[in-house]
Amino acid sequence: MPQETQQTDFQLVRVKSTWCRIKKGEALSDCKDKITLSEAKIGECISKGGISWTIEAPIYFCYKVVETYNILDHSNTTLLWGHITDPQQLELATSGKRKLRRFIVIDEVVDKLYGSKVREYFEENNVQHKILALPTTEETKSMDLVLNILQEVQNFSIDRRTEPIIAIGGGVCLDIVGLAASLYRRRTPYIRVPTTLLSYVDASVGAKNGVNFLQCKNKLGGYTPPVASFLDRSFIQSIPRRHISNGLGEILKMALMKHKGLFDLLKSHGKYLLDTKFQSYSSSADHGDAALQTTRIAIETMLEELAPNLWEDDLDRLVDFGHLISPELEMRVLPSLMHGEAVNIDMAFMTYVAHVRGLITAEEKEQIIQCMRGLELPVWHSGCSWPLIKRALMERLKHSGGQPRMPLPTGLGVAEIFNDTSEETLERAYELWVRDCKTALEEEPAALSEL
Amino acid sequence: MPQETQQTDFQLVRVKSTWCRIKKGEALSDCKDKITLSEAKIGECISKGGISWTIEAPIYFCYKVVETYNILDHSNTTLLWGHITDPQQLELATSGKRKLRRFIVIDEVVDKLYGSKVREYFEENNVQHKILALPTTEETKSMDLVLNILQEVQNFSIDRRTEPIIAIGGGVCLDIVGLAASLYRRRTPYIRVPTTLLSYVDASVGAKNGVNFLQCKNKLGGYTPPVASFLDRSFIQSIPRRHISNGLGEILKMALMKHKGLFDLLKSHGKYLLDTKFQSYSSSADHGDAALQTTRIAIETMLEELAPNLWEDDLDRLVDFGHLISPELEMRVLPSLMHGEAVNIDMAFMTYVAHVRGLITAEEKEQIIQCMRGLELPVWHSGCSWPLIKRALMERLKHSGGQPRMPLPTGLGVAEIFNDTSEETLERAYELWVRDCKTALEEEPAALSEL
Repeated sequence: MPQETQQTDFQLVRVKSTWCRIKKGEALSDCKDKITLSEAKIGECISKGGISWTIEAPIYFCYKVVETYNILDHSNTTLLWGHITDPQQLELATSGKRKLRRFIVIDEVVDKLYGSKVREYFEENNVQHKILALPTTEETKSMDLVLNILQEVQNFSIDRRTEPIIAIGGGVCLDIVGLAASLYRRRTPYIRVPTTLLSYVDASVGAKNGVNFLQCKNKLGGYTPPVASFLDRSFIQSIPRRHISNGLGEILKMALMKHKGLFDLLKSHGKYLLDTKFQSYSSSADHGDAALQTTRIAIETMLEELAPNLWEDDLDRLVDFGHLISPELEMRVLPSLMHGEAVNIDMAFMTYVAHVRGLITAEEKEQIIQCMRGLELPVWHSGCSWPLIKRALMERLKHSGGQPRMPLPTGLGVAEIFNDTSEETLERAYELWVRDCKTALEEEPAALSEL
Repeated sequence: MPQETQQTDFQLVRVKSTWCRIKKGEALSDCKDKITLSEAKIGECISKGGISWTIEAPIYFCYKVVETYNILDHSNTTLLWGHITDPQQLELATSGKRKLRRFIVIDEVVDKLYGSKVREYFEENNVQHKILALPTTEETKSMDLVLNILQEVQNFSIDRRTEPIIAIGGGVCLDIVGLAASLYRRRTPYIRVPTTLLSYVDASVGAKNGVNFLQCKNKLGGYTPPVASFLDRSFIQSIPRRHISNGLGEILKMALMKHKGLFDLLKSHGKYLLDTKFQSYSSSADHGDAALQTTRIAIETMLEELAPNLWEDDLDRLVDFGHLISPELEMRVLPSLMHGEAVNIDMAFMTYVAHVRGLITAEEKEQIIQCMRGLELPVWHSGCSWPLIKRALMERLKHSGGQPRMPLPTGLGVAEIFNDTSEETLERAYELWVRDCKTALEEEPAALSEL
């Protein structure tokens, strides 16, 4: 029913210490130099029922993603103040006037390998510190662990503005610490130091954090980004080969969605990257610095897609490629598939969907599947049945506003989002996929066929 | 040490489904109509040490604060879709095509008074619902209670985009539910329905939520605003007189900081507002609609100060008046002082500080103290000793970037923020305050002197 209403839009200006409303379009008074104009707005709607105010306020998130080498070398100060952008703050921090204090959470496996170096680093730099080593796995990724961390943080007593909490570990560790820090005093800065390839190209780049809850993956969490992520590829040399493939799955996702050059790099240097565990060797004329190039493009393409959509308000996301069916699959067969492996199985199926829809040629489809094999990623899984696929896509609809929003490659390194894939197309793609990939799997090494 | 660096700033444009970086200032290509420009930016800094990316991304928060009457009258649809702004969404919601579902958390005391009306409301409106009644007090305000709520939310299975969680209760209830909702699936919309005067003018207006942790008030929480707060003054008729004074403390804060008119209203109609429990009676010629005017100005002035600083990044906040010493005092004498009472004791002391500094006259100081008494608020407390004040102000420094940032009245309804109040001034103000207010207290009713 229409009502008589009167709408006024206000801007906000600060004069000395006080914020005041002024009507939008109203001229500011003469003393412009003393006035601060806010980007926030208040709309006021007066009707018979009373007043209704609408508040619109932007919050600017700012964070850094920084490549560094030998981050635990005590002359490398990145870990101490690489997160500081403001020159004045930097001067204060480095002046030595204030005793540095840091609270560090480290995954217990990483602690076994690097714990003594981490301790040495903070001791050499005269930083008062507390290092908390924790098991950070999908099984322990819970609010309990978040509260454990927070209790220790409270005991250590950090300054919520100048003493960021540091997380060193894989994606689970970074996610848990991110949630703990964003809850502590409503937001305490934190720093991410990824130690796996997957977290290097994925968790380190975005704002998401979270924990599992009632057997549901990342059911609780938030979108508060770290102040900085520090990327040191040298950690990757200590992870198993299968974990490198796992990370390559997410890199391949970005290649297929938006970067032909990255796809070519993976095709040409995949085995080399697996063999050398993403370390750079200047002696390799054939491979140039494939590790540096690959990770850089992966980060850049991820940032392009994440920055404009930090809180995921836009549901059309290319980065969802490989993530429509894989959540269902991953939870169903846990722990037999790693995240990047489940993602790859999803991408392999979707590649067939794209082909059946006529978006890519048979030859392009074949190139993609071959590239996946070269990265030692599974392209099929017995658990990924037709009923599971249908169920997963139904579940997807619930979380994506009633539309499938299905990213599909439309060539090599280009993609679009589709809402009109018929069940018939999906079923035909499934049959073709099973025919090609299931057979081929039988020829593969025992280790993979066990999956 | 200076390094050779190369800095490039990028904007982000979307072409079809893909976001791409373009150099800042670079002309967009011809097909402008198909292009979306993001407000997010990526800065890239290349140096010998590697690449460092700086991501800047704004998130727009939008929420409504809505006055309504008889919110539980089943013909009032505010509670069902008063939060919806988008006309298309509103049409979908009201079309009856989708069965409405709501999860409601209600304070158990409020449930005793209004529970049957709430149940009737949702039944009459054919809404599938779950009502969870919980004890929500400072003692139960914990992450445990948040997790209890989340378990029930998960059992009920809500649609995270279209089914806001509704909180009905005082500030503690609104804070707990706000935190639960902002954690669930990284952000689930929620609605606040305040049932006390304090939460009507305070918790309902801003973005803050949280729980106590390890005996620390609101140590864990966040800044995710509700989608809407629905304000119905009729709830206030069922709260005790002392709770009305409690809310008047926060209203007086806004009056003293920035609104002489509000101060005059409180001075003239304080007793009337207490007697009539903020209900509007058209028969009162003397008092006009003092309840409506007072609450409206309180909300408007609060919104002015909160909207430009939703995440409290700016530490200079007039709304901190009364909150420098009171947190220490409130926790120390718990549960003998209510929040608004502790705030008022802090404000009374600060009024003396302002007077000793020469910011307000003796007569203005006296008017303020008399107004406080008229609102039946304590103006002094034996627990508020000189050592406690000094300790509280030291603690304040830790959380306000090393400066006291002390809001002080500079007249009636005007204020500024000061960083240069000497300890001598504070001590002199303390002595005067004790002399005037302690003596006066002894003449007051027994109930107050027991505090």
